[in-house]
Amino acid sequence: MPQVSSRGVAMPMSPYRKLTPYADAAKARGTKVYHLNIGQPDIETPPAVMAAVQQANIRVLEYSHGAGNLSYRQKLAQYYQRVGIEVSATEIIVTAGGSEAILFAFLSCLNPGDEVIVPEPYYGAYTAFAIAAGVHIVPVTAHIETGFALPPIAELEARITVRTKAVLLCNPNNPTGYVYTRRELEELLALCERHHLFLLSDEAYREFCYDAPYVSALHLGPAAEEHVVLLDTISKRYSACGARIGALVTKNKAVYDAAFKFAQMRVSPPGLAQLLGEAAAELPETYFDHTKAEYQTRRDRMVQRLQAIPGVQCPVPGGAFYVMPSLPIDDAERFAKWLLEEFEHLGQTVMLSPATGFYATPGIGRQEVRLAYVLSLEAIDAAMDCLAKALEIYPGRQQ
Amino acid sequence: MPQVSSRGVAMPMSPYRKLTPYADAAKARGTKVYHLNIGQPDIETPPAVMAAVQQANIRVLEYSHGAGNLSYRQKLAQYYQRVGIEVSATEIIVTAGGSEAILFAFLSCLNPGDEVIVPEPYYGAYTAFAIAAGVHIVPVTAHIETGFALPPIAELEARITVRTKAVLLCNPNNPTGYVYTRRELEELLALCERHHLFLLSDEAYREFCYDAPYVSALHLGPAAEEHVVLLDTISKRYSACGARIGALVTKNKAVYDAAFKFAQMRVSPPGLAQLLGEAAAELPETYFDHTKAEYQTRRDRMVQRLQAIPGVQCPVPGGAFYVMPSLPIDDAERFAKWLLEEFEHLGQTVMLSPATGFYATPGIGRQEVRLAYVLSLEAIDAAMDCLAKALEIYPGRQQ
Repeated sequence: MPQVSSRGVAMPMSPYRKLTPYADAAKARGTKVYHLNIGQPDIETPPAVMAAVQQANIRVLEYSHGAGNLSYRQKLAQYYQRVGIEVSATEIIVTAGGSEAILFAFLSCLNPGDEVIVPEPYYGAYTAFAIAAGVHIVPVTAHIETGFALPPIAELEARITVRTKAVLLCNPNNPTGYVYTRRELEELLALCERHHLFLLSDEAYREFCYDAPYVSALHLGPAAEEHVVLLDTISKRYSACGARIGALVTKNKAVYDAAFKFAQMRVSPPGLAQLLGEAAAELPETYFDHTKAEYQTRRDRMVQRLQAIPGVQCPVPGGAFYVMPSLPIDDAERFAKWLLEEFEHLGQTVMLSPATGFYATPGIGRQEVRLAYVLSLEAIDAAMDCLAKALEIYPGRQQ
Repeated sequence: MPQVSSRGVAMPMSPYRKLTPYADAAKARGTKVYHLNIGQPDIETPPAVMAAVQQANIRVLEYSHGAGNLSYRQKLAQYYQRVGIEVSATEIIVTAGGSEAILFAFLSCLNPGDEVIVPEPYYGAYTAFAIAAGVHIVPVTAHIETGFALPPIAELEARITVRTKAVLLCNPNNPTGYVYTRRELEELLALCERHHLFLLSDEAYREFCYDAPYVSALHLGPAAEEHVVLLDTISKRYSACGARIGALVTKNKAVYDAAFKFAQMRVSPPGLAQLLGEAAAELPETYFDHTKAEYQTRRDRMVQRLQAIPGVQCPVPGGAFYVMPSLPIDDAERFAKWLLEEFEHLGQTVMLSPATGFYATPGIGRQEVRLAYVLSLEAIDAAMDCLAKALEIYPGRQQ
């Protein structure tokens, strides 16, 4: 019998998936489960945007340009210009979600065996893309005590080897919600300049910054242009995760040319969803005012509720729609399973993401969890009531 | 300045793209260009299928299941059962076009440095996917004299090394239009059994077999089940290339599990297009009768016209929508460029694909071209008039 590849075996199973059978069982028992574990927005996909697809007159659904329809890229360039990122249509490759942008960036910037430095905790799928592309993630640990700020540059610099080709930063951060400051980004760019590294900047949550203005890696001036590869998606911005439309944006011509060849390999990005993306790029700025205000209210409520629970340490995340508290527990995976298997409060429980799935370094983050506030204030209150109650009686409670 | 990856440099530029500037220039001069070079069907995307997307009631366009919506996979399983392929919804992973299925198959079945044997000429993007996955394509040459039939099994067997993990077959074939016989497939499966290889079967053109019944690699009985990974797409079948919906289908549980983890990596396949695929899977069998009859008429006309041109050798392709003749010319790349730059007949010319882009072995196929018959009979006649005239006066004409 033929044998599957070792990389297929080495690929991590999504941490979310490990808990799903327990959540299903809880639901089967009649328990309501609040899903704080996934970043699937509940906000409505803008109806005008859906209508653009649904009213389009399409006789033959043809391949689009390998980099995406020019008309979409032109409107996307205008969107970027509105947020202070000066790029043109020829510096954009439309991708199948932010996911494909990550893959193309790894393939274009790194060779097999090369290393990319990533502050941890980080979005778990980076590990999977690294395995697919044959590259190694070198983690540098951020700490809850600093609100998961960028670790000192010296710590990143100490990890650089001859194989290091890039630093990958998610800003605003998933899973921590941390928003990097201009000073942190400038220090990081200087590091990349000193060591000839790419700065891969995943800005999927750009629109969701609550306390300070958002700074993009492409806001850092001409010095950034050769280094920065921006990874983007409309998934969170317009509540359109299922569309699978993202973008790789770079002013580095060699990276663009390489990435475009990988884009040609799969002929074109999803066609119907590009129509959706194009309509979304024309939404007025006020669209974000509304969604941002909604998320900010939820963040404030969730943080306030968490900070009121004895033994919980919860930094205030400046962006995205996640909080990453430390709980007074022995082990987040065990606690998450216990919540689904053995606990209920008024017929309800919560599903959360143990932070260990976001750390590459074994054994750390065992008291931390990621909670997504993609549900209503009422649901957040109910979920926090559950969590507070659970922490009172959890057998593995620790101080 | 940071350096792009060597694999990004090594990636081939699409051969189609090399000629595009010349085609654009010809059009700018007012010359009509018949595009025989691309496999973009002109047949209408079934209106009922487009309507399924356009009338869907979607509040939040959410991530779907990583393997695709269960309802779609169930209908797809029924479609496969109708064509004699006994698979269930849990043996299907919906992908972003056939492209992503090829990538997932390479990643799941082969490790970096492993080898896959592919009869050449072959679909050029296989080379790109091999570079992306870090695997090596080992070509075995098929010849125009046999109509591009499978080369003798002994020739494939002679290429097997300790790194060989799979054979990849496109059936019906792009670019040759050859349809493999049951006997060829059985011999190939026996080879895979003897050497513990996967049989990756790209069946994108399944519905377009004109002279003999179609045989799938999954028609070969229980012995095939552990070996076959079927790569599929709705692009050609329903004239929906732009949707980017395909599938990886396998009864090998270990391959499925590995491929599913790669599928989870990018969270989900395109969402809107899955609705399209689901509606397409419900189309009556008569839909294919019509499209197949249309393509068959075109094939007959194009082959008849080509065979009537002195010095042209043109096998009759049993399937897909391509023919691959040998022309009385010095070099197909030069001829293709000359057609666009220096030739016109009644204000018209043709764009064709030089076969060298489909061979991995350097220096062969220089007299061959691939022609797609995805245009009307009238357009085929006009294009063949151009081609016949061009071959009369082309300075590099050879016998």
